[in-house]
Amino acid sequence: MVDEEENEMPAGIVVRGLRKVRTLLVESAGARTLDGKQLARIHDLLHECASGVGGEVSARRRAGRLAETYLRLDDQGRATFLRIIASEFGPDPQQVARAHADYQAAIDSEERWAAESDLRHAIRSSRLRILTQFTALPQGVKFLVDLRADLLRFVDQDPALRSLDQEVELRLAAWFDVGFLELQRITWSSPAKLLEKLIEYEAVHEIRSWSDLKNRLDSDRRCYAFFHPRMPMEPLIFVEVALTDKLADNVQTLLDEHAPVFDAQRASTAIFYSISNTQPGLRGVSFGNFLLKRVVDDLKRDYPRLVNFATLSPLPTFRRWAEKNPDAWQKAFGEADLERIKRHLAPAQTTMANAAGLVQLLADDRWVDDERLARALQHGLRRLAARYLLATDKSGRPYDPVARFHLGNGARIERLNYLADTSPRGRRQSFGLMVNYLYDPDTIEENVEAFSRGSEFAAAAAIRRSARD
Amino acid sequence: MVDEEENEMPAGIVVRGLRKVRTLLVESAGARTLDGKQLARIHDLLHECASGVGGEVSARRRAGRLAETYLRLDDQGRATFLRIIASEFGPDPQQVARAHADYQAAIDSEERWAAESDLRHAIRSSRLRILTQFTALPQGVKFLVDLRADLLRFVDQDPALRSLDQEVELRLAAWFDVGFLELQRITWSSPAKLLEKLIEYEAVHEIRSWSDLKNRLDSDRRCYAFFHPRMPMEPLIFVEVALTDKLADNVQTLLDEHAPVFDAQRASTAIFYSISNTQPGLRGVSFGNFLLKRVVDDLKRDYPRLVNFATLSPLPTFRRWAEKNPDAWQKAFGEADLERIKRHLAPAQTTMANAAGLVQLLADDRWVDDERLARALQHGLRRLAARYLLATDKSGRPYDPVARFHLGNGARIERLNYLADTSPRGRRQSFGLMVNYLYDPDTIEENVEAFSRGSEFAAAAAIRRSARD
Amino acid sequence: MVDEEENEMPAGIVVRGLRKVRTLLVESAGARTLDGKQLARIHDLLHECASGVGGEVSARRRAGRLAETYLRLDDQGRATFLRIIASEFGPDPQQVARAHADYQAAIDSEERWAAESDLRHAIRSSRLRILTQFTALPQGVKFLVDLRADLLRFVDQDPALRSLDQEVELRLAAWFDVGFLELQRITWSSPAKLLEKLIEYEAVHEIRSWSDLKNRLDSDRRCYAFFHPRMPMEPLIFVEVALTDKLADNVQTLLDEHAPVFDAQRASTAIFYSISNTQPGLRGVSFGNFLLKRVVDDLKRDYPRLVNFATLSPLPTFRRWAEKNPDAWQKAFGEADLERIKRHLAPAQTTMANAAGLVQLLADDRWVDDERLARALQHGLRRLAARYLLATDKSGRPYDPVARFHLGNGARIERLNYLADTSPRGRRQSFGLMVNYLYDPDTIEENVEAFSRGSEFAAAAAIRRSARD
Amino acid sequence: MVDEEENEMPAGIVVRGLRKVRTLLVESAGARTLDGKQLARIHDLLHECASGVGGEVSARRRAGRLAETYLRLDDQGRATFLRIIASEFGPDPQQVARAHADYQAAIDSEERWAAESDLRHAIRSSRLRILTQFTALPQGVKFLVDLRADLLRFVDQDPALRSLDQEVELRLAAWFDVGFLELQRITWSSPAKLLEKLIEYEAVHEIRSWSDLKNRLDSDRRCYAFFHPRMPMEPLIFVEVALTDKLADNVQTLLDEHAPVFDAQRASTAIFYSISNTQPGLRGVSFGNFLLKRVVDDLKRDYPRLVNFATLSPLPTFRRWAEKNPDAWQKAFGEADLERIKRHLAPAQTTMANAAGLVQLLADDRWVDDERLARALQHGLRRLAARYLLATDKSGRPYDPVARFHLGNGARIERLNYLADTSPRGRRQSFGLMVNYLYDPDTIEENVEAFSRGSEFAAAAAIRRSARD
Repeated sequence: MVDEEENEMPAGIVVRGLRKVRTLLVESAGARTLDGKQLARIHDLLHECASGVGGEVSARRRAGRLAETYLRLDDQGRATFLRIIASEFGPDPQQVARAHADYQAAIDSEERWAAESDLRHAIRSSRLRILTQFTALPQGVKFLVDLRADLLRFVDQDPALRSLDQEVELRLAAWFDVGFLELQRITWSSPAKLLEKLIEYEAVHEIRSWSDLKNRLDSDRRCYAFFHPRMPMEPLIFVEVALTDKLADNVQTLLDEHAPVFDAQRASTAIFYSISNTQPGLRGVSFGNFLLKRVVDDLKRDYPRLVNFATLSPLPTFRRWAEKNPDAWQKAFGEADLERIKRHLAPAQTTMANAAGLVQLLADDRWVDDERLARALQHGLRRLAARYLLATDKSGRPYDPVARFHLGNGARIERLNYLADTSPRGRRQSFGLMVNYLYDPDTIEENVEAFSRGSEFAAAAAIRRSARD
Repeated sequence: MVDEEENEMPAGIVVRGLRKVRTLLVESAGARTLDGKQLARIHDLLHECASGVGGEVSARRRAGRLAETYLRLDDQGRATFLRIIASEFGPDPQQVARAHADYQAAIDSEERWAAESDLRHAIRSSRLRILTQFTALPQGVKFLVDLRADLLRFVDQDPALRSLDQEVELRLAAWFDVGFLELQRITWSSPAKLLEKLIEYEAVHEIRSWSDLKNRLDSDRRCYAFFHPRMPMEPLIFVEVALTDKLADNVQTLLDEHAPVFDAQRASTAIFYSISNTQPGLRGVSFGNFLLKRVVDDLKRDYPRLVNFATLSPLPTFRRWAEKNPDAWQKAFGEADLERIKRHLAPAQTTMANAAGLVQLLADDRWVDDERLARALQHGLRRLAARYLLATDKSGRPYDPVARFHLGNGARIERLNYLADTSPRGRRQSFGLMVNYLYDPDTIEENVEAFSRGSEFAAAAAIRRSARD
Repeated sequence: MVDEEENEMPAGIVVRGLRKVRTLLVESAGARTLDGKQLARIHDLLHECASGVGGEVSARRRAGRLAETYLRLDDQGRATFLRIIASEFGPDPQQVARAHADYQAAIDSEERWAAESDLRHAIRSSRLRILTQFTALPQGVKFLVDLRADLLRFVDQDPALRSLDQEVELRLAAWFDVGFLELQRITWSSPAKLLEKLIEYEAVHEIRSWSDLKNRLDSDRRCYAFFHPRMPMEPLIFVEVALTDKLADNVQTLLDEHAPVFDAQRASTAIFYSISNTQPGLRGVSFGNFLLKRVVDDLKRDYPRLVNFATLSPLPTFRRWAEKNPDAWQKAFGEADLERIKRHLAPAQTTMANAAGLVQLLADDRWVDDERLARALQHGLRRLAARYLLATDKSGRPYDPVARFHLGNGARIERLNYLADTSPRGRRQSFGLMVNYLYDPDTIEENVEAFSRGSEFAAAAAIRRSARD
Repeated sequence: MVDEEENEMPAGIVVRGLRKVRTLLVESAGARTLDGKQLARIHDLLHECASGVGGEVSARRRAGRLAETYLRLDDQGRATFLRIIASEFGPDPQQVARAHADYQAAIDSEERWAAESDLRHAIRSSRLRILTQFTALPQGVKFLVDLRADLLRFVDQDPALRSLDQEVELRLAAWFDVGFLELQRITWSSPAKLLEKLIEYEAVHEIRSWSDLKNRLDSDRRCYAFFHPRMPMEPLIFVEVALTDKLADNVQTLLDEHAPVFDAQRASTAIFYSISNTQPGLRGVSFGNFLLKRVVDDLKRDYPRLVNFATLSPLPTFRRWAEKNPDAWQKAFGEADLERIKRHLAPAQTTMANAAGLVQLLADDRWVDDERLARALQHGLRRLAARYLLATDKSGRPYDPVARFHLGNGARIERLNYLADTSPRGRRQSFGLMVNYLYDPDTIEENVEAFSRGSEFAAAAAIRRSARD
């Protein structure tokens, strides 16, 4: 909210307030906890806001003052602030009771419609009226999104905040309706201020420097993001794509700044190798679903030779899952596998060549660098990963969160790649494995519907076989 | 929805459908009434929409088919379509009853928050889920705004539609939150496609031709509009401003295409001579309030010498009011006035020189052209108009709708202008009188607050005196 | 120069001057002739300009004063002004003689290069230094282009001005190098200020109204123009295109506002039905040549089904040519033709059924409306037109100026269309005939080269046969 | 030329050629020297280009091939290539002789104008016709600018190239006329691709990183550049400005990334602390002159409180000059100074406390870090620098190149700052001194004119006094 450009500010008054805040925050040792006097002042401000007295200029000034106050508070202060909104500006139970009685009484008459409206009105709270006044501020929408990110951090400790959060989420969902979002391509000609956000937000494969970023925007790469018209320099979600001639099987190769540039016009395959959500305050508001479809359309228009659309994705909870499922190891590693592994172990380690021992053996990530041992482990780990990918949670959905996202969007599990991410994180999370999900334009919709019906997950025959072995 | 540009369409499938519709509408003799088979089909489509089955691509295709169907229907068909949505997709009264009981039971416990959320969820209907799916269409927001314009036409005949209308209005109010609107200046360099809309939408002083429009955008004029990011070529409300050196007192002079151009750098006064709302489907969603404030700010930045901001406004219901208030004439026209009038009447008309007779006398608009008679009538008509402007409706607000708007926005009634609009409409509505409302930046906020407290209307002393005479 | 937008003006001083001029021009009865005092003042200003004394701000102010002075003058004054520049700021013949002697003496030595530079420097005049100072003014480039349009009007009376004109043309050719021009599509969403220029500049088929213009920008039409970055709202040349499914044979049909809109996606044929140069001051600076090639490329990208690119063009000097070539009639109209014509003539006119009489007969344009007579004349007029199109001027190039343009650009004469332009102008210029020139992407370059070698004109076999008959 | 974006390329053919070149250049060990066969091929291509045979498409293809060939050559090959153009495409001396004779013969007749044109035509060479064909290429203008940068490197060895260079410079001066340039503000929201160029081009105070750059674009900084419409991402010259409340006296402080941000709205002073020309190929084409005037105008509009506009500039040749002027030291350092210096020297160095010894003493840059010694040297060094700044070259212009630029633009020498640039370069070039040139809007023009008349340099009294001491 505070790093905006001057020329983006429609109205002066409030903004100067916020600027001052920034200075204060920077200058002061830290943010403040609420004292009694402030609490009283916040009470007053909130009640004024809820009452809606005065013109829009007053409303705006008030919203500015509230925002300023909020930004100055520390976490405890903010939680108190939000709790006041949650608890003091809810509906009046007696009024709700009356409206409900009228509604039920009118059900069979023509009055039911008016009664329904009245009941809906009675249950409506002033909470949103307070919060949505911030939209009048420059960058007010971003302020509200960030405020919800705060809310989500506090929500577990306070049921009142959870209820407020649900109201805020609904409103944000209305504002961030997918029809309001704009797909934009991000290139090296995009504003530095925007590119800086990619560096900050990239959640999957860290962007290490501006030259790393430039490489990801070279002529054999594409990057797309969804934007909201009121948050112009804030990508909501973005995807990084590599144009190549085969299903990529290693992310370090993909990100190598010194690799030659591929002639994109000859590309047959688009690899979505990183998808990042950027706004924690928009949790629960889905828009990733449509992003990939739109990106595929755009790519096909520009590169008519493209035929394959696939991801190169992590298995973020593979290792955690595997460590909790010792019998899965048993099924994945056959006698022959264990025998082969044993041959590459140090004498002191040979006792580890069994399902139980393997977990321990692999605890030290350095096995990846032992080429022969790694080769011996390959078959078993692939089978283990296939099992993991097809595993479900209690509600029958994929256990792996990334699989959940892509299968839900109509992709299918296409191929497992061994030693595909040998970064520390790759080793730690998934024994270095990665997976390609394939988006086949001809079957996406079919897969989406099958998935929402709860059918078997879409997966290549080889994966399915591997999981059964 | 149908006149969009090709390059504004993000996704192909649906749009082609809509284009086809346009062709059909143009080619066929007219729109269609629903038959039984169609009714069944619409039922199915709506229930599918409400269920949310399938991916977003399916949802989009479905929304496209629904929109296409709707656009093909005649008014009766559309009313039926909307009635289905209103009546079949409401909340389930029994579920509401249960949630309400839980809520009331939990009021004093920590569970009250969750119970409140649940009640809110129970009362939520699927109606909006259906309607908001249209946002995924290109120009889908405009489609919904137009659909609500239909709704408003049907609403009086059907309480179910009124209830639906209230839900839609709330959602539109969320989307058209003033924080989401963009103020833009409209000039002769704006797209012709946009300027064409001004010609179509101007509601106060008709734009007669492109050269009339060009004159209104000359260097001594300004035009501003609010836009929504999802309706890029659709002004929501626009205001036309003349830069001049005195309070304008005649609108024909102001609109004279052959008048010399005033040097705007020397202007002391900005006259807002026309403000038009353009979207009937946004009735109840207010944004005019802030428009003038923003325009004043922008003008002051560009023309530091500007000190007066005023309107030249019609009194649209003056004559209607006057004809229903014979005693107001009595008070407005004194003996001396009547005497003077009598002197300029034809012998056969002299009996009309009294309060009752004047209404009849002025029924023929041509009196305006009789210079001496017009002069004799001036004092009385000015007093009558002053009374009218200060008259209130039952709830104590200004009787005159334009006064309601400007006084509510912080202006004051500054001056009445006699023979200020001698067009047929001006004569018919207000005996040719117009009024200047003055926006004094120093007192706007004060006036807004006073007005919302129900204080006396802000008016120049002369107006107040004239009304008392 | 004078109708520019305020926000396009980088620096204030001069512009206010020009604005004032506008006012003066409008207010005063007319522009002024030079008197002796002014003449002296202009002399001084020009010599100051040529000397280049002072900083750029002074230079700019001076240029502004000069431009202002120039714009205030009537034609006689402007011619005098330009004559001063032409005659007083040329090179010094003695200095030229010295430099030339040095150059010739150095021809065989290494000094020849420096000597060549010196000679070039000696021959350079201060005229351009004066004129190019106007570029510092807002819209200064347009000012210079308009000044050259003046020059071209005066040039025949004064050899000094012709020489100046050649210098100016060379400089404009450098500035309007085709590499500096931008191809832009013009649509109904283009600025009204720009569209207004199309109405003003359209030279072939007059645009009658804004609705006529809108029709020419509908979804089955395209319009392209070349722009120079320093003349942003000034198209230099523009072409209007119709997308259709066959070679158009009638321009009234093409421009009919009530004709149904064709689905451009199904179009096989693009008809270039109007090409207009807009800046008389750029005569001799060619850029039409490349426009069509670029437009064809753009159309092919957007409409892959397009296969034919052709014009529907006038034969502007056909009738004039025919009236001067009586024996051409003799060859074009055979006995059978004359016999058939005779049958449809009034008894008094039958003597006109011969080559000499036909000229007289067709003098009255109304024959076009006599369907049967028109049919009888068709064969002969077609042959006559074919002869005309293949006729050459003294230097062996096409006699018809439009043919010269298109054949030079690589098109071929494809088809003659009878009764294709029945407007008064069409009747008057070309007995209502029009011609399609075909741009076949495969043979354009070949045709260009053949044409520049002076080979036979590219023409369909039927045209060639018809001309031989 | 080669790193352009795909979507900036208007036409495909040639570009692919150039892209291929890039790949080749990168892949091959290096560029190529001309062999005989290539030489012959280049000859042919150049003669074809000069002849202008064929259509524009051929011309373009040819230009593409030439550019490709040129880019592949090493320096020796390029010099040969350019020498062919210079020596084989000049005017024909015999034709020039004839035209000159005609011209001299016609001097007193009306034919003189035509004869002058003919002579000018005879002296015109085909060299430019060849070179300007590159403008048809995407980024062709940049190509030509870079080609001239090559030319300038070769020019000293070859008088023919010098002559060609003068022709090219004249044409570039016509194209880069100040009226064609656009002033743009550069911010952190500018394209990364453009910002990257700043990092590359900054010539005065190196930009060390993206965070250094971001700091220079913060809210208390401004950056402006001139652009040419055909080189959209290439700043031609740029200036970096700091907004502050006093005349800055130290550049390290100014560039400190950790310094607090100044509230620009309160700024009284704008410091131009870095001005960089970026295109060596535009040497001799001046546009810096007007840049500062335009920047001052823009700053004053945005920050009405700004009253002082000054630079913080290096004295790049101070030390070199001082080392060549031993007697200047004598005058600058008085007895008292030398005495004071002596007190802070090591015993072994005390013999250096005299004019001759000081040069030697200061040869080691570390004296700057000796606070007391530095203090002792201050007076003398300031006097020495004042003398230096007021020193002239043979033609009476300032000896210091930066002084030449700013005094020529209307600034005055305002203040010397001691220990103002303690970077290695600052020590090496100017004993750590810097100077403020003041641009006083009221006297700029006056100073420009005085300077161009050769009057005394504008300097503060203190500077003048210091130089006289």
